[in-house]
Amino acid sequence: MDLWYTEKHSDNVGITIKTSKSLFSGNSEFQQLDIVETLEFGRMMLLDGLVMVTERDEFIYHEMIVHPALFTHPRPKKILVIGGGDGGSIREIMKHPEIELAVLCEIDSLVIEKSIEFLPSMASEIDGNNPRVKLHVDDGLAYIRAHQNEFDIILVDSTDPIGPAVGLFEESFYQLVFSALKDDGIMIAQSESPFYHAEIQKNIYRNIRAVFPIVEMYQAFIPTYPSGFWSFAFSSKKYHPITDFDHDRAVTRDFHSRYYNENLHLGAFMLPTFARENITE
Amino acid sequence: MDLWYTEKHSDNVGITIKTSKSLFSGNSEFQQLDIVETLEFGRMMLLDGLVMVTERDEFIYHEMIVHPALFTHPRPKKILVIGGGDGGSIREIMKHPEIELAVLCEIDSLVIEKSIEFLPSMASEIDGNNPRVKLHVDDGLAYIRAHQNEFDIILVDSTDPIGPAVGLFEESFYQLVFSALKDDGIMIAQSESPFYHAEIQKNIYRNIRAVFPIVEMYQAFIPTYPSGFWSFAFSSKKYHPITDFDHDRAVTRDFHSRYYNENLHLGAFMLPTFARENITE
Repeated sequence: MDLWYTEKHSDNVGITIKTSKSLFSGNSEFQQLDIVETLEFGRMMLLDGLVMVTERDEFIYHEMIVHPALFTHPRPKKILVIGGGDGGSIREIMKHPEIELAVLCEIDSLVIEKSIEFLPSMASEIDGNNPRVKLHVDDGLAYIRAHQNEFDIILVDSTDPIGPAVGLFEESFYQLVFSALKDDGIMIAQSESPFYHAEIQKNIYRNIRAVFPIVEMYQAFIPTYPSGFWSFAFSSKKYHPITDFDHDRAVTRDFHSRYYNENLHLGAFMLPTFARENITE
Repeated sequence: MDLWYTEKHSDNVGITIKTSKSLFSGNSEFQQLDIVETLEFGRMMLLDGLVMVTERDEFIYHEMIVHPALFTHPRPKKILVIGGGDGGSIREIMKHPEIELAVLCEIDSLVIEKSIEFLPSMASEIDGNNPRVKLHVDDGLAYIRAHQNEFDIILVDSTDPIGPAVGLFEESFYQLVFSALKDDGIMIAQSESPFYHAEIQKNIYRNIRAVFPIVEMYQAFIPTYPSGFWSFAFSSKKYHPITDFDHDRAVTRDFHSRYYNENLHLGAFMLPTFARENITE
């Protein structure tokens, strides 16, 4: 029997992926979680029926949500990841030896538990054995309210602005993130597809610009996300991702990255005209 | 009745697009041609069942196969497009007032005829009314054999390396293109997806590098192409796409482009590590 998973990216277009078996399917109090084996992308995790990560292309998303900020901030020591229960962002953060502590604040313990069980290549640093990593199962808003002026970098590694993550795209949330950051802190937030989500993007960038003085969109190709064209919002109190980019530290890094590199860091901010116009008021 | 068109990008993944009606379906001596109306992408042209262009995202492919070369060559006057019977590349070329002649050499007259009939936004400059445009219905190889040392720029606007276009990816073809170019000529060839076509890309770039001294891959997001991550080979006798880029001419251009711009021109050449490694011997 051929089993194809199809995710609609709008009412009228979708991606279809051949699966070989279901590894887990269950509901937490927040959402439905599925982990399936696919032939093209390895194991794939879905939340409420939408692709979150696959083993084959997750390196793109996770390298790109982490390294641009970490190679821009001159002395990043303490990082918070909101969401990201699969552990991929934490894995990339741990490649930076100067990081003293990375906190993962994920609302849904089932995502963490099943990622450790079924996605070990992503969850390798959140299994409790790394003293530089702390896990908190909590609502991101509640957590940052209680941790003001504390982090160098905060990554908003959220799902789409529907379901449990809807509050993570509002101005009041970005204000809390701003306050949880130190005076020279940086927030990175995934900010959807310029091709399919122009209206959502307008709102995200309006909300972030109401809070942060430096806001620059950057892009990455992510084949299993809608249109393959994805974006992140570099949001910063002091450091600019191009003029403050620590090129030397990026060049001399002691780890291999399969998507990110010191040239791509710059190119990622050079946007197609329509993508820039989407977020221009 | 819901009719969904599904294109497999490999045996195990595909894109699925809702269609509302078929506008044309027929066979030429070379291939099957279909033009269908879709809800997400407007009209869509398929050759042998594969998406060639859609009205909604063709601007990306056509701007990106044309403008990087035309803003690098200092005095482009005479251009040849091999393939590209939909007319989109010619439309973009005609936005450059310094171009004296653009020749379209398309093997299949049915593609030209039905593009003029059903895709007028692409075919606007190939309907016979522009004296700066000449159409030749001919095999690209035969045409360039008879036109040596003649063109400033040649665009290889081909289908995939299967079917009638297979000869357009071989070293002997690139050698003919080299000879059909003037001493400072540039060839641009579409070069498939770094994500799905690593082996095909290795061959393409090995073949082009055997002929041209300057070969640089650049990238564009094209949502309806496999993985959404597409590439082009900038292949040149003399001019380099970064160091010889005519930034001022790009900035002062008197037309609007929706994807290409003078910053993106540079960023398009800043490749993900895995894409660069695909084509490194």
